[in-house]
Amino acid sequence: MTSRPLLIKAVLLLFFLISIKSTAQSIDIERVDPTSWWVGMQNPKLQLMVHGESIGTAEVKLNKYNGVKLTGITRVENPNYIFIDLEIKAKAKAGKLRFEFQNGEQSIARTYELRQKQNVDIQSLSQKDVIYLILPDRFSNGDLSNDKFADMADPESDRNNPWLRHGGDLQGIINHLDYLKELGVTALWLNPVIENDQPQTNEGGNMRSAYHGYGFTDHYAIDRRLGGNKKYAEFIQKAHEKGFKVIQDAVYNHVGINHYTVKDLPMKSWLNQWDEYTNTSYKEQPALDPNASQYDRLRMTDGWFMPFLPDLNQRNPLVANYLIQHALWTVQNFGIDAYRIDTYMYNDMAFMNACNAALKAEYPDLFLFGESLANPVPNVAAFVKNNMELDFACNLESTVDYQVHSNMLKALSEGYGWHEGANRLYETLVQDYLYQNPEKLVTYLDNHDEHRFFSVVGEDYRKFKLGLTWLMTLRGIPEIYYGTEILTKNFKNPTDAEVRKDFPGGWPDDEVNKFQKEGRTEIENETFDFVKKLISIRTTEKAIGEGDFIQFMPFDDGVYVYFRTAGDETIMVATNTVNSSKSFSTKRFEEVLKGRKKATYLMTGEELTDLSIIELNAYEALLLKLHD
Amino acid sequence: MTSRPLLIKAVLLLFFLISIKSTAQSIDIERVDPTSWWVGMQNPKLQLMVHGESIGTAEVKLNKYNGVKLTGITRVENPNYIFIDLEIKAKAKAGKLRFEFQNGEQSIARTYELRQKQNVDIQSLSQKDVIYLILPDRFSNGDLSNDKFADMADPESDRNNPWLRHGGDLQGIINHLDYLKELGVTALWLNPVIENDQPQTNEGGNMRSAYHGYGFTDHYAIDRRLGGNKKYAEFIQKAHEKGFKVIQDAVYNHVGINHYTVKDLPMKSWLNQWDEYTNTSYKEQPALDPNASQYDRLRMTDGWFMPFLPDLNQRNPLVANYLIQHALWTVQNFGIDAYRIDTYMYNDMAFMNACNAALKAEYPDLFLFGESLANPVPNVAAFVKNNMELDFACNLESTVDYQVHSNMLKALSEGYGWHEGANRLYETLVQDYLYQNPEKLVTYLDNHDEHRFFSVVGEDYRKFKLGLTWLMTLRGIPEIYYGTEILTKNFKNPTDAEVRKDFPGGWPDDEVNKFQKEGRTEIENETFDFVKKLISIRTTEKAIGEGDFIQFMPFDDGVYVYFRTAGDETIMVATNTVNSSKSFSTKRFEEVLKGRKKATYLMTGEELTDLSIIELNAYEALLLKLHD
Repeated sequence: MTSRPLLIKAVLLLFFLISIKSTAQSIDIERVDPTSWWVGMQNPKLQLMVHGESIGTAEVKLNKYNGVKLTGITRVENPNYIFIDLEIKAKAKAGKLRFEFQNGEQSIARTYELRQKQNVDIQSLSQKDVIYLILPDRFSNGDLSNDKFADMADPESDRNNPWLRHGGDLQGIINHLDYLKELGVTALWLNPVIENDQPQTNEGGNMRSAYHGYGFTDHYAIDRRLGGNKKYAEFIQKAHEKGFKVIQDAVYNHVGINHYTVKDLPMKSWLNQWDEYTNTSYKEQPALDPNASQYDRLRMTDGWFMPFLPDLNQRNPLVANYLIQHALWTVQNFGIDAYRIDTYMYNDMAFMNACNAALKAEYPDLFLFGESLANPVPNVAAFVKNNMELDFACNLESTVDYQVHSNMLKALSEGYGWHEGANRLYETLVQDYLYQNPEKLVTYLDNHDEHRFFSVVGEDYRKFKLGLTWLMTLRGIPEIYYGTEILTKNFKNPTDAEVRKDFPGGWPDDEVNKFQKEGRTEIENETFDFVKKLISIRTTEKAIGEGDFIQFMPFDDGVYVYFRTAGDETIMVATNTVNSSKSFSTKRFEEVLKGRKKATYLMTGEELTDLSIIELNAYEALLLKLHD
Repeated sequence: MTSRPLLIKAVLLLFFLISIKSTAQSIDIERVDPTSWWVGMQNPKLQLMVHGESIGTAEVKLNKYNGVKLTGITRVENPNYIFIDLEIKAKAKAGKLRFEFQNGEQSIARTYELRQKQNVDIQSLSQKDVIYLILPDRFSNGDLSNDKFADMADPESDRNNPWLRHGGDLQGIINHLDYLKELGVTALWLNPVIENDQPQTNEGGNMRSAYHGYGFTDHYAIDRRLGGNKKYAEFIQKAHEKGFKVIQDAVYNHVGINHYTVKDLPMKSWLNQWDEYTNTSYKEQPALDPNASQYDRLRMTDGWFMPFLPDLNQRNPLVANYLIQHALWTVQNFGIDAYRIDTYMYNDMAFMNACNAALKAEYPDLFLFGESLANPVPNVAAFVKNNMELDFACNLESTVDYQVHSNMLKALSEGYGWHEGANRLYETLVQDYLYQNPEKLVTYLDNHDEHRFFSVVGEDYRKFKLGLTWLMTLRGIPEIYYGTEILTKNFKNPTDAEVRKDFPGGWPDDEVNKFQKEGRTEIENETFDFVKKLISIRTTEKAIGEGDFIQFMPFDDGVYVYFRTAGDETIMVATNTVNSSKSFSTKRFEEVLKGRKKATYLMTGEELTDLSIIELNAYEALLLKLHD
């Protein structure tokens, strides 16, 4: 709990009262968002948010511009804002609009650039992709000159402090694109790159800092410490050249406490405000519960995610426009291929549908997936295109598959039982009937918010390989978290930073460089080769990348077998989830085997000449490509 | 595993081969099912199954009968059967059809009764009802003359043997209708009453017997040991006179191994047959899984429930007709109000929809609920009218609520946590969005297949009262199991019979009679009065019997509060699920309190003059009716 939001509100109110009392206010323009726009967009509408001293008191004129019309002006509680609605017709040409802002004797002219919309070559994601998640501050420091800036709210940088920036940046990622190409991943998801000019906070002993990037302070600026807008454009261009898709992390639910619209609120209803500070309940249930109280529903959606992450009121159309236009601007400006949408279920769902629809209308191939860490499966399915008739029909095409994630972990950390062990994973996948597109769900073993998978399985290398084999062969689009390929371990203890360690070799003064074979230990190289091989199978085998998924109910107290098939190509994934060896007849699989009696071990290329009996060591996973 | 079905098959095959080889076979008629029918039914079709030696070799003629036409004859593999299709037009009058069966020189005449259909006054179930479940053999022995019959497959009766019949019967229930009226329950569900002329079996040490009634051997006979058809009609009439609704237990999935259609199979495809004995997997998942193998699907639906319960092939239209006609016959003949449908999800779903539709077309008010003991919630919802778009759209209106059942038990037997304790129950009820009619689900704490609730909660009387308060005030139609009102306990250990004990006082030689106040101990009387009071509230308070359900997310580490409201009437159910007292402000409930500051304790009639703070002892439940 904190009283900061209340203080801010009080200060704002005072400022506002002073503002409206004085007449013939001097006006100024600090910024206009979006910072630029395009002619040729599907949607002819554009709403500019102009911010500057008393600009809301000005009369606004748009000089004559062929095909562009000023259709509306919205003045709000805070005179430092004015919202200008434009209609940009198809016939409009690129050029510069010229606005005049007049307040008594004072007049300000402002130009606004309309560029020609270029075709953006967006590559959607599919089961053939493997996503690699990077926390930019902790991957590689490619530019020592941008590690810290004295004029920013958290001006320090110190690799020995888990809370502070470590200096990782976009140049560091650019420098390792060849490494990632060697590994074989096809899509790069970076934790947010937008400016987080946020202070460190200490809430009752809970240190909070912004190095992970989820508190935007200026939507239109990529964080300077990562390299700024130009470097981001360069990163995307180079990633695209090497065949990577780029996923940007979007945050619509909240902004940073230092966002300029929070420091100088356009209006009270810009944020979800409460009489006293109210945190979200972090429980999605009331949003879905037909029996829910309004009290619980509001707390869920309108409560703040953290005291320093003010909750945007997306039911306010000015806020909605602001967010949606930024989302479109980013795709058009940088040419990203996908959005991962943070804290999806905390958003206003009507807003999210509008935002998704606007993006898809303009960029049909843009891939969108949400973060909905809900329990149980139907609650996850509710926040993606599903097969349920709910009050709210979600139009989002994909989500991170939190349930397959957590049930893979459970399957490997508990004994086998009627609903336990392998049955956890099996029974979760049974519920694919709730999803319209289970094959588009983003599956994972860990990420920046989770314990490292190798630690979760007690550093049992057999389980590590088994889990990765599942991840890389099940339906969905797998994500691996940076460092998995070198067997990085750790629990989120004492802090999340333990699972966000600097990649060894990413900093010039690192003693070892694990981006290179020579810098890696034997087991790290074995892991690298193992992960690389799995990724190669994932991205090249049609049965996995495009095929159907057929699973058999776990049997023999721990054996779980499934198949991926595309046309004549059939891959069998035979896994043993318990600590004893297993031997079983393949007779029950005949509908898939179709008489085939031989197979190739995909990981080694060796041959299995008799498929009638399969033998599995404890926690072993076999990948078999069937043939006659 | 057993080889009995194979033996039966072999014998049948032999019999069949002999039958078809001999010509000019002597014919006979043993029985015709349905045993009678009615004119005036919605559906004009009727299919008679005639069974008798070589009757399938006969020519069949129907003597002229106004409005009745013989439309088809079906001969099957076994010549001892013939199926006769009739059309009974609206204009047909009651009377006797006359059939002639001719085989060479031999001719048999057979009459068949068509009665005038009478209106059946069916009372559907609703939230205002409380169901009382009785295992007829173990409730009360009202007729000592029908305890055993030497000509039956299990000819013994012995109250000291958990596997044998104890002599309880319909007369015993009739004798205690006043007791049940005093208790206040409104609907009587009896475990199956249809003849189970089944042997006791001993499968590898697992004793199995038929006293619980799920292995029918003659659909058209009520078990003689319960009193037979006449006594059942009398029971229903008397129950109806006293205002009780009557629920019959239906079993479509299987029959007893001694069913006459199994002993003399009409055709191989009458049953689901396997090359070797195959038990069902008891897992509903493959029936729902879009990724399932055909192997797992078939094992689930076509595998046998038990070796002595042959699985009917409901995809065979002759089987389907046989079962559906019997279901209709029962309603029309006895006037029952509802069916509880055993092992619902093991049935063929197309058959079940056809059967439900046929019953509803003829008897719109007949209440139907299935037994679908599935995990998790969506798998239960799949087997009742739901809000999911599945390949199969179930038309069943209600099911037993296995998930609310098991999560009420968990909520009371584990500590409070993010998803544990009260949150189990809360989160289960959140998923009401999956059901079309959550208010029609049949809720329960225990039944004939479960541990007694009082034992599950470790004989903690506070938890016992808390659970019953939930049961009697939550949405749904509550069921209580006989003996709950006298605090009956026990685990299903060593056998299920431990939770199916004779009701003390139900047998003439019982030393105590707990049907009477004087025979009950102090705590038993306290329990009786407690349950009776709860039932009274359930059945008379409009807010509970007809009202909406609004729940608040559990808070204060264990408090769970919900409301039932109908118009101005509002009942608050405040419960404490942990072992420490709680005190909390009611401010968060203001949307429901609507300014009301006072309440009446419904269980005691006492007044609460200040509703602003609620105090709850450990595991306490308060029922408060709000007023100004």
